Amino acid sequence: MGMRSRREFLGAASVVAAAQQSRAQQAAPPAEQIRIGYAVVGLGRLAQNQILPAFAKCSRSRVTALVSGDPVKAARLAAQYGVRTSNIYTYQNYDSMASNPEVDAIYIVLPNGMHAEYTIRGAKAGKHILTEKPMANTPGDCRAMIDACRSAGRKLMVAYRCRYEPYNMAAIRMVREGEIGRLKVFASDHGFNIGDPTQWRLNLKLAGGGSLMDIGIYSLQAARYTSGEEPAEISATMFSTPGDPRFKEVEETILFQLKFPSGLVAHISSSYGYAGNNRYRAIGDKGWLELEPATSYTGLRLRVRQGNVTREIDLPQADHFAAEMDHFSEAIRNNTAIRTPGEDGLQDVKLMMAIYEAARTGRTVRVG
Amino acid sequence: MGMRSRREFLGAASVVAAAQQSRAQQAAPPAEQIRIGYAVVGLGRLAQNQILPAFAKCSRSRVTALVSGDPVKAARLAAQYGVRTSNIYTYQNYDSMASNPEVDAIYIVLPNGMHAEYTIRGAKAGKHILTEKPMANTPGDCRAMIDACRSAGRKLMVAYRCRYEPYNMAAIRMVREGEIGRLKVFASDHGFNIGDPTQWRLNLKLAGGGSLMDIGIYSLQAARYTSGEEPAEISATMFSTPGDPRFKEVEETILFQLKFPSGLVAHISSSYGYAGNNRYRAIGDKGWLELEPATSYTGLRLRVRQGNVTREIDLPQADHFAAEMDHFSEAIRNNTAIRTPGEDGLQDVKLMMAIYEAARTGRTVRVG
Repeated sequence: MGMRSRREFLGAASVVAAAQQSRAQQAAPPAEQIRIGYAVVGLGRLAQNQILPAFAKCSRSRVTALVSGDPVKAARLAAQYGVRTSNIYTYQNYDSMASNPEVDAIYIVLPNGMHAEYTIRGAKAGKHILTEKPMANTPGDCRAMIDACRSAGRKLMVAYRCRYEPYNMAAIRMVREGEIGRLKVFASDHGFNIGDPTQWRLNLKLAGGGSLMDIGIYSLQAARYTSGEEPAEISATMFSTPGDPRFKEVEETILFQLKFPSGLVAHISSSYGYAGNNRYRAIGDKGWLELEPATSYTGLRLRVRQGNVTREIDLPQADHFAAEMDHFSEAIRNNTAIRTPGEDGLQDVKLMMAIYEAARTGRTVRVG
Repeated sequence: MGMRSRREFLGAASVVAAAQQSRAQQAAPPAEQIRIGYAVVGLGRLAQNQILPAFAKCSRSRVTALVSGDPVKAARLAAQYGVRTSNIYTYQNYDSMASNPEVDAIYIVLPNGMHAEYTIRGAKAGKHILTEKPMANTPGDCRAMIDACRSAGRKLMVAYRCRYEPYNMAAIRMVREGEIGRLKVFASDHGFNIGDPTQWRLNLKLAGGGSLMDIGIYSLQAARYTSGEEPAEISATMFSTPGDPRFKEVEETILFQLKFPSGLVAHISSSYGYAGNNRYRAIGDKGWLELEPATSYTGLRLRVRQGNVTREIDLPQADHFAAEMDHFSEAIRNNTAIRTPGEDGLQDVKLMMAIYEAARTGRTVRVG
């Protein structure tokens, strides 16, 4: 599994310190020794701005390899994050990570349409897989990813970072503990005014869909995780501005309504065409609970209304990516359960396909 | 038309003052002389807590008659609001208001299912009609009301009070002036946890429907008046808690999605089963604008987001009912246009019928 301590990289000068550390390990192993080594695959903005910096805040995870089609960028980031030059891979020699014991897990930060291939190849190379959301473009791809990891005896997790940060976790707990009474309606808006028309998110083959696949999925996830229920019926409508060069292949805006077995109903908008919105409100028969921003990388705010009183709840702001990676590392290390396994990602992809079907046909679609 | 001054009610002691007032009139008629006299029909909580007290804040409207089936309550309220005992009517002798010149207009505050009958009888009695929302239970009733007032040469207005108060008027202006860019999505929740299962609002014949007819209509109106557009397609879903004694005849919760010709889409919830929610957000491609509370009787708040800045806009809180009644009085006095005529009420009732149809059938309904 390659859980080497950082000693390996310190060189001769630190032999004495290393020896001291070695003695200390007999009492309790230092955190460094139990860090899971990650290869980060795909070095776009998310990897550069969020994921690579997050390793510094991890206690159980470290970056040990990079995979990129751009050798210059890869070399620069390897130097910045202390990754050995020999641990830089391309998409062609990706599979050769199999023989690299410093890589325990692969974090796939590629366009959606590439998640399946790199998950399956990664599992075959004997690595655990953490993949960005959405898990894949189709339920079939999701199932193939689950099967590949199961066959390889490797773990699979979808990077639903909001499930690992304090605000959304508090929201889940408060709803489940009945602080707003019985949950009746879930309302949410997620979207932003997307830029560059040539980016992969607007390419159907790479993205699998438009705003829903990228940002509406946060609302969908939150409806499911706050309620702990799965929807039974879906209706939807969508719209793309005619002639807008950004929306030739994927939808701009989609609205959807979900009906759950308990009677809970959700109404949600997702858009690539409106100014930043990032919020949900869970409405119960005794009050409501709102996060806004709900799923931004930082700065989340939680307000709760009970009776005639609205109060804001302050919690520590955690690094979502660090929390998510350390959860996966712990699951790998201790063989504990993963909060957001492949099955969770598959369910969202199945539901998103049903949302698209409902929008296309104008008819309520039954799911589940 | 019976625009008598208050002098008539002052008695002998004020003759001198009245004579002085009379001289002053030659320069400019005092406000008292141009007040339109209203009969308030139906003395339930809305009339007692909001409408009757609002006359004190009016400059063009005064209450001159009451109509009730409860003579004790009517006498008490007549004394409280300075209405002559001879101007108390019952539902039986309602039509005899025709010969009462102190009644120019009738404000109908009855259950929804009674609006049509009392509008038509009132118009035949020669009175202008201000009716509470929803205008009636069916489009057919709405058309009959419009026809009756037109035939009688009398004005007809629906009491959409939010169209006359500063916050919603500012929201309309800001959207129209492009302060949030092009309007993309309208999101709204209106509802409350309704009490007494025996009240008329839960009786299908009297109410015409459930939460949608009573409170969801605020969201529907706001989607229309902020955008200035009429929806072309509707999808919807509804839910009532099985066994809940409140929802034997009418729906508890209904969600609906509207698609407008410009591409604007709206997603809305309306409920009698959740804790108080009263809000809408208009989302444009350059920002958003939110009212919460949006349509409460008072305490409205308006926030606007542009770029990365959210600011709250303070405006005077006006009495919505006083503003609405004075608008109608001015229209009667000066024959000016009514902002919310019967045609506006008819449109909402037509759309609500389409929302119910979409929820029942699970199919998108085209309207307009």
